[in-house]
Amino acid sequence: MAAAADGFRTLDEKSVVDYIKATPTLHAQLGNQLDGLVVKEVGDGNLNFVYIVVGPAGSLVIKQALPYIRCIGESWPMTKERAYFEALALKEHGRWSPDHVPEVYHFDRPMSLIAMRYLKPPHIILRKGLIAGIEYPLLAQHMSDYMAKTLFFTSLLYHSTLDHRHAVAEFCGNVELCRLTEQVIFSDPYRVAQYNRWTSPYLDHDAEAVREDDTLKIEVAELKSNFCERAQALIHGDLHTGSIMVTGDSTQVIDPEFAFYGPMGFDIGAFLGNLILAFFAQDGHADKGNDRQAYKQWILKTTEETWNLFQKKFISLWDEHKDGNGEAYPVSIYNKPELQLLVQKRYMAGLFHDALGFGAAKMIRRIVGVAHVEDFESIADASKRAYCERRALDFAKMLLKERRRFQSINQVISAIQEIPAC
Amino acid sequence: MAAAADGFRTLDEKSVVDYIKATPTLHAQLGNQLDGLVVKEVGDGNLNFVYIVVGPAGSLVIKQALPYIRCIGESWPMTKERAYFEALALKEHGRWSPDHVPEVYHFDRPMSLIAMRYLKPPHIILRKGLIAGIEYPLLAQHMSDYMAKTLFFTSLLYHSTLDHRHAVAEFCGNVELCRLTEQVIFSDPYRVAQYNRWTSPYLDHDAEAVREDDTLKIEVAELKSNFCERAQALIHGDLHTGSIMVTGDSTQVIDPEFAFYGPMGFDIGAFLGNLILAFFAQDGHADKGNDRQAYKQWILKTTEETWNLFQKKFISLWDEHKDGNGEAYPVSIYNKPELQLLVQKRYMAGLFHDALGFGAAKMIRRIVGVAHVEDFESIADASKRAYCERRALDFAKMLLKERRRFQSINQVISAIQEIPAC
Repeated sequence: MAAAADGFRTLDEKSVVDYIKATPTLHAQLGNQLDGLVVKEVGDGNLNFVYIVVGPAGSLVIKQALPYIRCIGESWPMTKERAYFEALALKEHGRWSPDHVPEVYHFDRPMSLIAMRYLKPPHIILRKGLIAGIEYPLLAQHMSDYMAKTLFFTSLLYHSTLDHRHAVAEFCGNVELCRLTEQVIFSDPYRVAQYNRWTSPYLDHDAEAVREDDTLKIEVAELKSNFCERAQALIHGDLHTGSIMVTGDSTQVIDPEFAFYGPMGFDIGAFLGNLILAFFAQDGHADKGNDRQAYKQWILKTTEETWNLFQKKFISLWDEHKDGNGEAYPVSIYNKPELQLLVQKRYMAGLFHDALGFGAAKMIRRIVGVAHVEDFESIADASKRAYCERRALDFAKMLLKERRRFQSINQVISAIQEIPAC
Repeated sequence: MAAAADGFRTLDEKSVVDYIKATPTLHAQLGNQLDGLVVKEVGDGNLNFVYIVVGPAGSLVIKQALPYIRCIGESWPMTKERAYFEALALKEHGRWSPDHVPEVYHFDRPMSLIAMRYLKPPHIILRKGLIAGIEYPLLAQHMSDYMAKTLFFTSLLYHSTLDHRHAVAEFCGNVELCRLTEQVIFSDPYRVAQYNRWTSPYLDHDAEAVREDDTLKIEVAELKSNFCERAQALIHGDLHTGSIMVTGDSTQVIDPEFAFYGPMGFDIGAFLGNLILAFFAQDGHADKGNDRQAYKQWILKTTEETWNLFQKKFISLWDEHKDGNGEAYPVSIYNKPELQLLVQKRYMAGLFHDALGFGAAKMIRRIVGVAHVEDFESIADASKRAYCERRALDFAKMLLKERRRFQSINQVISAIQEIPAC
């Protein structure tokens, strides 16, 4: 295919090989053996093509962004410049959390193309593991580590305001992806919108109730303003369980194309909220061989541990770097251990409530908005699916509205456990 | 003087005339009569030279930014690029509030030079008018109008997020001026710092108490984070009574070199806080001929009216433009009058508490920080000055810490009126 004026051309399984051969920086990763490369397109996302390239002496992944949202077709255009921000975020987050972010080998801006580490089998998408009922004993440890590091080191607790504003300005360029989030998370679920869907007719009333819940709408406006206005840290921007690949001992965060400087709670909430969605979906996956009761408890334990470990690690980083360049809490002012403790407590309480709010908003939109989750979609029986979805939706609505009364993640977990079977 | 490599050269009263003659865009404003121009340097600020240029057939002002803070000398460098942001802000704010922002005739970026409307006598700096005890019956009307329009039209209540993030990114470039604010308002007053000063020895203990007040420091951290992270609207950034020129029927806001996308409450608080400082200074200006009691009540009435009118006008703009491009509260979601009312109430309550917090912080820094206000400085008797300053400081500390318990500006005014003479 001929290149467009901007140097962009869509690759396919065949032309990917030509591209690799013409790109010397990629050869070392393939052990310089370019004959016999096997290419497989595996993109199950909505926005990109993803090619796994395996050769006799090495492997890599090529991800190419397309100028529209794939699942809807060219009717929903989406800037392919997002690949630039994805590459930037992979590098910046990878710098702080190299154990949990795949290495970038090469970025080609005109081609909107990133070459990165191939996460070999048995890596699978975490969401699929959760549906299958697989326990990941290191998941809370790994995800809390990833979030604590990527969020702390890109915040004003570590950055000077000079570095921070510079980085904020750069990521303002990723506005189109932010707008997509604003629309599908903070707006569409709360109004009649073309692409909204839900398990009908079971949830018709529930979807309508969301659109008519004034208290919910007031709270969502506050979260949206936070999302649009507050440049707290470089966030992943789409940190659900479909953006994480796992094995028993590896956890890798991928696809940060929505990255920008936003509220930290948006990332933390995305992960916790999607774990809670997985919890509510379990009843739909139970069968005679496995009632999923033990697994449900494992999900809750992981949810709880993720926040508690995150909090512990985040505060450790803060203590460790309190004499550094971070300008939020200069040690010349916050100069006593007891004062340091007080500001940290206040900061973490705010962050916790942000995370609960954003997490709840992300749960709601997965049930009555455009993009649903496989956790529920894979429950074939619609009435059973609707049952699971309604319990998740009701919990999320309560959490969004009453998040400020929760003082600890343990209280949130207890509230989940106390929900009766309807 | 020869031009530097970047095209910058410092002008003086003589070379200003040469500059004007060589700049055709300025000629019309002077009625094309360039002989007999009278030039007078009047900059009483700390950062710039300001030349009033009056000719036989017209007039203008030339403002040139210098690459350091003038009062401290070249020891405190300050980017002259701030002139670029000042010109941008004058144009943007002037677009929305042309009655209260001087027109920009010309901007020369390499020279860091703005040519703008000369605010002729009897315009004086508002602060001087307040010290002299002059009432400005239209001040609250004008300032509420200026703030409502400049803040509303540059916020997400009017902007799409696309326009907003683009503008935010541009003004991130004014980071050095933001850093100056961060240091002198949110940091230095709360620690031992080289340039801090206060009316010593009278306020030695008070200054120390500020540095040791943990509750105050916790609240200040929250305001600072708001200032550094929240891109709510294009704010003036330094809206004290020294940035406003007035006559009986004209109110003009000048000097927005600190402009950037920040929290609206910072501007509102700056103005209200400086009115309250003027109030507390009055006892130091009272004499046999004028006890200033009536004037003190006028200041409080103006403070009260400014907020109440601001709130009214801001909400009117919101109502008027609710079907526009603003993306914070889409009418498709906030679709009922009672819901619209609820979100507005929540929004204005948050803004009010922000304004009180920032206003209080700005009062504190004028008493124990580097830059003081003439309201107090012009009280020759140090013990009398310290008396006034201490009452202002004590009120500001209370306001900063307890701002959330105030539900209306009337309650704030009552709290001021209830302060006993010590």
